[in-house]
Amino acid sequence: MKLSDMGERAIIGKLGRFLDIGDDAACIRMGDRFLVMSTDAIHAPTHIPKEMTPQQIGKFIVTVNLSDMAAMGAKPLAFLLSYGGPDTEFTRFKKIIKSAQKQCRKFKIDLVGGDTKEMKELTLTGCAVGTAKRPVLRSGARPGDIVAVTGELGAAGACFELLGKKRRPNRALLKAALEPEPKIKEGILLAKHANSMTDISDSLAVSIYSIAERSGVGIKIDIDRIPMSSIDHALYSGGDYQLLFTMPEKNFTRLREVTNSTRIGTVTRAGGISATRKGREFRIKHKGYGHFGRNR
Amino acid sequence: MKLSDMGERAIIGKLGRFLDIGDDAACIRMGDRFLVMSTDAIHAPTHIPKEMTPQQIGKFIVTVNLSDMAAMGAKPLAFLLSYGGPDTEFTRFKKIIKSAQKQCRKFKIDLVGGDTKEMKELTLTGCAVGTAKRPVLRSGARPGDIVAVTGELGAAGACFELLGKKRRPNRALLKAALEPEPKIKEGILLAKHANSMTDISDSLAVSIYSIAERSGVGIKIDIDRIPMSSIDHALYSGGDYQLLFTMPEKNFTRLREVTNSTRIGTVTRAGGISATRKGREFRIKHKGYGHFGRNR
Repeated sequence: MKLSDMGERAIIGKLGRFLDIGDDAACIRMGDRFLVMSTDAIHAPTHIPKEMTPQQIGKFIVTVNLSDMAAMGAKPLAFLLSYGGPDTEFTRFKKIIKSAQKQCRKFKIDLVGGDTKEMKELTLTGCAVGTAKRPVLRSGARPGDIVAVTGELGAAGACFELLGKKRRPNRALLKAALEPEPKIKEGILLAKHANSMTDISDSLAVSIYSIAERSGVGIKIDIDRIPMSSIDHALYSGGDYQLLFTMPEKNFTRLREVTNSTRIGTVTRAGGISATRKGREFRIKHKGYGHFGRNR
Repeated sequence: MKLSDMGERAIIGKLGRFLDIGDDAACIRMGDRFLVMSTDAIHAPTHIPKEMTPQQIGKFIVTVNLSDMAAMGAKPLAFLLSYGGPDTEFTRFKKIIKSAQKQCRKFKIDLVGGDTKEMKELTLTGCAVGTAKRPVLRSGARPGDIVAVTGELGAAGACFELLGKKRRPNRALLKAALEPEPKIKEGILLAKHANSMTDISDSLAVSIYSIAERSGVGIKIDIDRIPMSSIDHALYSGGDYQLLFTMPEKNFTRLREVTNSTRIGTVTRAGGISATRKGREFRIKHKGYGHFGRNR
């Protein structure tokens, strides 16, 4: 069997069985809190949109890694960057690094270390380290919890669709797709009460399935409530660095506005994912952005 | 200017000015100790000897990262692995991961997380996290310190030279080159008294220059004392995951045997690197294994 026959989620599932992964980041207890660690790579041919400037690339590698911190409700502590790339001009390299550094500073951390290697294609691997008093896993959703997302969904997917058709997206779409921001502040606020949380960078659909499966619950989604520009992009496109979480309704009331979140469903006791759209049953496919060759 | 005009050390020097790097790993104070973090990547065309089996590759990515922990005198806490590679057979992927896991367990840590991405060439990026009460930097060498190395040097370089000439190295050489071990135990023991320390994976020569420069001291080496199979390989080849350190002579006496170390020189007040061989002056070139295209 080849890796592309499995899809990235399945590979991480397999890895998970070796490695006990399954959350956005790993946690280790250190005294009265947890150390939270994650790694995420972007690679030119498959993960770096060719429209990105060096500045956007530098920002992006930090965002994708800090988004994993946000998903755990962790406060970032430090960021490491491994730079692999062709023997390109030093000025481009410098722009990427400087921009990564700037994005780190926005979240009050330093780019503390790095590594450079010559590679044929630009390959950036980040490693984020943070701390959390109570990291939020994907496995804690409880029947009765509301299901909610931060922000608005689908802009990144819509932008990439237009770019794929050689059309020029507007400024807001380009910014959403090429300059996403990690939801650190929101993650920390939500962590106080969320029973489960994950980022939806691989797609909302995949993330819904993941929380339901790992929590041993069902999830019922009201499609009409999803804050989105297009159903397909909101559910399946990925690239929206927003958070999906579940928590008791009473806590959500207070956090809704300050985290710019929207309730989109409910955790159910019975397993499986169900959804309605305009009062009718709607099937959410288990599909998202897969890195080994295909969507699934 | 291109990156290859600079050499990896120079790039890291440039990065260092942006990022304040310059040691084997980054440190952040956390309560009564320091969190120590490093990242290191290996890439098939340039950093993974083609003779390596999947098992040796999995072990190697852990070793190169833990060697950075050893160089700081840190106790490893966790390891993260980002796996990029062609859409290869799952069994090969599994062998690499399982072997990385086994090497982690040898040092009582877990491979706690990972990431998989499709890439044309096998690219593994590790991130090691550890703790140290007193991390040992490259900048603390003091005049009068002895200069010493752990283990024996040059075997890796000798092995790669033979392989390059299509000759078959003996078992011991192959093991030294293809299955190096990080000197974690030695690093922790030495950290109690070392004033400066680094690993010598990029070459002994480069590491000597680095400690002298960052400590603002000179170093005088007695070439005849270097425990080695060949001067050229010991000084310039890299691939020996041993430690170079300086410390007061009185402390070295007790640590010499338990860390299998050999004194090879002395830290001097006057700057610059000097060396003697059989009583005559010997010039140590500033040369090692550079990853961007050339040795320097």
